[in-house]
Amino acid sequence: MQTVLRGPSSEIIISPDTPIVMIGERINPTGRKVFSAELQAGDLSRIPRDAQAQANAGATVLDVNVGVASVDEVALLPQAVRLVQDTVDLPVCIDSANPAALEAGLKAVRGRALVNSVNGETAKLKAVLPIVAEYDAAVIALCMDDNGIPATPEARLKVAENILNEAAKLGIKPEDVLLDPLVLAVSADPTAGLVTTTTARLIRQTFGCNMTAGASNGSHGMPEREVLNTVFLALLAQAGVNAPICNPLKNGLAIRAIDLMMGHDEWGMGYIQAYRALPKE
Amino acid sequence: MQTVLRGPSSEIIISPDTPIVMIGERINPTGRKVFSAELQAGDLSRIPRDAQAQANAGATVLDVNVGVASVDEVALLPQAVRLVQDTVDLPVCIDSANPAALEAGLKAVRGRALVNSVNGETAKLKAVLPIVAEYDAAVIALCMDDNGIPATPEARLKVAENILNEAAKLGIKPEDVLLDPLVLAVSADPTAGLVTTTTARLIRQTFGCNMTAGASNGSHGMPEREVLNTVFLALLAQAGVNAPICNPLKNGLAIRAIDLMMGHDEWGMGYIQAYRALPKE
Repeated sequence: MQTVLRGPSSEIIISPDTPIVMIGERINPTGRKVFSAELQAGDLSRIPRDAQAQANAGATVLDVNVGVASVDEVALLPQAVRLVQDTVDLPVCIDSANPAALEAGLKAVRGRALVNSVNGETAKLKAVLPIVAEYDAAVIALCMDDNGIPATPEARLKVAENILNEAAKLGIKPEDVLLDPLVLAVSADPTAGLVTTTTARLIRQTFGCNMTAGASNGSHGMPEREVLNTVFLALLAQAGVNAPICNPLKNGLAIRAIDLMMGHDEWGMGYIQAYRALPKE
Repeated sequence: MQTVLRGPSSEIIISPDTPIVMIGERINPTGRKVFSAELQAGDLSRIPRDAQAQANAGATVLDVNVGVASVDEVALLPQAVRLVQDTVDLPVCIDSANPAALEAGLKAVRGRALVNSVNGETAKLKAVLPIVAEYDAAVIALCMDDNGIPATPEARLKVAENILNEAAKLGIKPEDVLLDPLVLAVSADPTAGLVTTTTARLIRQTFGCNMTAGASNGSHGMPEREVLNTVFLALLAQAGVNAPICNPLKNGLAIRAIDLMMGHDEWGMGYIQAYRALPKE
């Protein structure tokens, strides 16, 4: 099953048999005070720098989120999208909780975008899926619904099935739904990692879908988070999560290491290239 | 399926549902010039230090190998085993290519040891399995035979089956055979990692056996080997390799991170403890 995304003149394919696609998460004000203040002041100058740095570190899809208090996302998101695609020839992942901003962002996109995100909530399905269908985008779908985040893999799978069914009604194919099995913090629940990988395996077996996940959520509240993130990215990849949202500047080498050890890096050149791209101390 | 090993007064259980058991690999002169020279001079003083350091870093089985040119292993191995078990209350893994040395080592063991190793070669099966049976030890079995290391997972599985059959004839149970799917370097063959994890998955599905592997072999010839070793340990663990031979001083935190993300660290305390045991800079 192939998810095809496009930049202005590039094509990125997400599939089980090809190297992992990193969705760069950096263009997002959440937890970034300086970037938040810049966006509030209408200063977008950090966006091209973050886009280029993530592309250099191996990201091939870039998430774009400008959601911060008092900012008009409907006006700002298209500007940010244009800036990113003026800088790097990559597909974008339009990220907003506001459907009007998603639509404004999609209008500015060159190529074929990913939308971040829908989930199984009735209102969300109704608001987001028609936009995805209208603009022929792909969409990230979180395995949660009106009852919250299900505790068991089986219940998350049920939510995934419901979203796929609702998407199908609008002509959105399973290959254009990037399911997210959802990652909770192991510091709050030590079975959280196992629940996520089990959900991912069930999704892959049942629907064959490509998947994303925010792996770093798993390590919140723990020391030496990079070690946890690295091993979790490997466990997730083996369970079928082949397009994680992550920080390529921190996880880029680990992702290429996973490709290599999974037999998805034919001459080891992806890994060697990531090694050479590391900032030298 | 449980593999039960014992130290002088301790018991270590290897099973799919419990935390990964690290077999500490440091007490081995291979690639260690100073230690080799010490052994050749009859100086065993490094052994208790290495035993203690590995135990502190979370190893719960210690490999003991004193095989170096001009050393009489039959005389030295039992001394080394006694020194290790005088220092730490842990099971040992008697490691030698010389069956007479294996037997001498087993005579010195307190508890229940692991023997490193047998493989599918006719001569090896004949020389090693009777000793394993006689001393009621468990044994590491490498998936290679008179034809060398098979290229495919299916052929390695066949070798595993043959070893298990030969072991059964002497009353050695499958739970006392720790199969090694064999790790070759991805620098020589980029599919090497995939072949190993696929073999491991087949072994677990077919025989249910516990498994070991020398994960670090996979990264030979590559830069930033620790990243490759960390992700490979995770991929191997998810494929069923639950007793890797490794350097706990380098891999200890990663191993506990894998346990935590796999749901085998009930309160995250194994990971936190490994974090606290890290040498502070």
